[in-house]
Amino acid sequence: MTGSIVTLTTDFGLSDYYAGVMKGVILNVNPAVNVVDICHDIRAYDVLEGAFAIAQSYRYFPPNTIHVVVVDPGVGSARRPLLVSADRYYFIAPDNGVLSLIFAREEGVVVRHITASHFFLEPVSHTFHGRDIFAPVAGWLSRGIEAERFGEPIADFVRFTLPQAKRVNERLLKGVVVRVDRFGTLMTNLTPADLPELFTDNLPPFRFMVGKTEVTHLRQAYSQGAPGEVFVILGSSGYVEIAANRGSAAQTLGVGKGAEVGVVFG
Amino acid sequence: MTGSIVTLTTDFGLSDYYAGVMKGVILNVNPAVNVVDICHDIRAYDVLEGAFAIAQSYRYFPPNTIHVVVVDPGVGSARRPLLVSADRYYFIAPDNGVLSLIFAREEGVVVRHITASHFFLEPVSHTFHGRDIFAPVAGWLSRGIEAERFGEPIADFVRFTLPQAKRVNERLLKGVVVRVDRFGTLMTNLTPADLPELFTDNLPPFRFMVGKTEVTHLRQAYSQGAPGEVFVILGSSGYVEIAANRGSAAQTLGVGKGAEVGVVFG
Amino acid sequence: MTGSIVTLTTDFGLSDYYAGVMKGVILNVNPAVNVVDICHDIRAYDVLEGAFAIAQSYRYFPPNTIHVVVVDPGVGSARRPLLVSADRYYFIAPDNGVLSLIFAREEGVVVRHITASHFFLEPVSHTFHGRDIFAPVAGWLSRGIEAERFGEPIADFVRFTLPQAKRVNERLLKGVVVRVDRFGTLMTNLTPADLPELFTDNLPPFRFMVGKTEVTHLRQAYSQGAPGEVFVILGSSGYVEIAANRGSAAQTLGVGKGAEVGVVFG
Repeated sequence: MTGSIVTLTTDFGLSDYYAGVMKGVILNVNPAVNVVDICHDIRAYDVLEGAFAIAQSYRYFPPNTIHVVVVDPGVGSARRPLLVSADRYYFIAPDNGVLSLIFAREEGVVVRHITASHFFLEPVSHTFHGRDIFAPVAGWLSRGIEAERFGEPIADFVRFTLPQAKRVNERLLKGVVVRVDRFGTLMTNLTPADLPELFTDNLPPFRFMVGKTEVTHLRQAYSQGAPGEVFVILGSSGYVEIAANRGSAAQTLGVGKGAEVGVVFG
Repeated sequence: MTGSIVTLTTDFGLSDYYAGVMKGVILNVNPAVNVVDICHDIRAYDVLEGAFAIAQSYRYFPPNTIHVVVVDPGVGSARRPLLVSADRYYFIAPDNGVLSLIFAREEGVVVRHITASHFFLEPVSHTFHGRDIFAPVAGWLSRGIEAERFGEPIADFVRFTLPQAKRVNERLLKGVVVRVDRFGTLMTNLTPADLPELFTDNLPPFRFMVGKTEVTHLRQAYSQGAPGEVFVILGSSGYVEIAANRGSAAQTLGVGKGAEVGVVFG
Repeated sequence: MTGSIVTLTTDFGLSDYYAGVMKGVILNVNPAVNVVDICHDIRAYDVLEGAFAIAQSYRYFPPNTIHVVVVDPGVGSARRPLLVSADRYYFIAPDNGVLSLIFAREEGVVVRHITASHFFLEPVSHTFHGRDIFAPVAGWLSRGIEAERFGEPIADFVRFTLPQAKRVNERLLKGVVVRVDRFGTLMTNLTPADLPELFTDNLPPFRFMVGKTEVTHLRQAYSQGAPGEVFVILGSSGYVEIAANRGSAAQTLGVGKGAEVGVVFG
């Protein structure tokens, strides 16, 4: 058995039955598998958001977990279905970059183009490969079929790089908001490595310029802020966040995903 | 064991604990069962939408799966609780037509009026039969209690027919939008059998008139459309859909569920 | 084994991967456990709503179920993590009152301050104790680690009392709407014990004054009301509700959570 847990990360939403059908297909192949939802509410067609969700989640699961990621605006086109074997996990996803952050974090992955169509649900629709390709492949892999039986390794798979922090000069750093969560917390693309000044014992004066607001406080916990106060905090994701205590930073600042973040020191 | 998988399809939503309570009740009867969500976000009281969701999903699950469907505006009234034995599946639902599409697709079903109240959670509330009747019956059925022990077969159960496609004349066909999904895709009640012209090698000129727009392109895959273009496509459900590539057809056309669809050939 | 079912009740929502990550952590400790969602859509930071959800749900699960409740505006502060052993269940939650209704209903509970940090995910973040503390403790408890190994009993845990019904005089009772569900049903804090008049054979004339409306009908089932009619009903929760048949009482009356309810008899 290569794994008895299959996770699902999709942009199918929960108002339709699509995620439920995928579970049925997987269980029909392997009734003993444990299908676990990571998230089905990735913004429709948003490959980058899907890439973040799986990157933030996969390592917390047991070894040999099979992670299925279906954010797939190119379904039915020539884009390839992939099976990725990493050190401790498997990933099944369309070849559209949704696994880019996995490729960035995991060394020595083997990426295969899934071509073994006898594992697919026939006839394969042009519009729902989650059901017809990705789910049955996950089911069969969880039953112990070896990865090499699904297709040949490839090297030219799609990967994109995250928007990087830009050090404009010694005093100015530029980043961007890459995600807003349910609480209105703004996750940036900035890590402690990008602004080590912020995480030293001698914290210099600084300003985060977001929208029309300057954020000048750093907190260790959400509850350290005054109610509604907006502050900078190191998030559980490892990225720098802009958050509020019992309030929504996104709403308070009037900004969302894609907003520029300028950090000025001194 | 008649089955170790129980699925749930309800209009309970996910902002309340109702679906969670049903799972508790089922697991309390049979801790070994695997309870799988198909969808809890059926529009409140919308029996037709529930009928679609289960019809599109049930066949993908392993044999002997027990499908529980609770869209139940008549809860607490004289409407009967049903246990349906089909060739490979069981269905538990109120007698309000929510299983109509199952009755249309499955031959030789046995429909029972569930009367064996010693399986119910006592006292039975007048407002939450999902918890007090449907869930415990599913639990006991999954433990191997025979279907005949829950009640007698009946023949006068409720069933409705879907709105049918109307062939007005040789050139004009009329249908309706029966569902809009998360991506804004409009599912119609039209199948390839209703308009075989569309699925032959010699595709004739055609127009789908929806709202104030004429849709004149047929695509095989969403990604074949130009970004935002609205087109006709055969959906994974087996019904003809009106969709857009990386966009919402519902929003672009300004129409929703119930909208008329006129198809003109030539 | 103290239990093989772990439930989750959180305000994490479903648009993020937070609930999925908690499941991964639990399964990584105990791959055999069954993780069951009760509700992840508790209103952000709303400890009272979380308290209701778990109180209405916990008893329906099998004995030894471990209920994890994370509505945790004080995450990262000095508020303590708790492990509660009740007669038939375990509860893991922050010490902020979210278990108040459990304390009110369960006798002889032992409440422990979780201090055994070797069970935690290291390094413990300041912002996501669901992942770093509550989930791994649930996993280890489900594997059979005794409750006493997680920390010492305490007596000064936080508990609040629900807003109580006020008997102003023989004819007037005052209550409040404590919750609105997906169907627009208003759950009050009133129980049959507060207004026994309503549940006797000789129902006296009465008026529920809610917003600008007087509700004067009592129904046994939602479907007894005329479509859209607003009425009083005893809900499945054991609380008196104000509801509508196939409609939203909240919308019809224009009131929501926190609205005062005056009951006048005679």
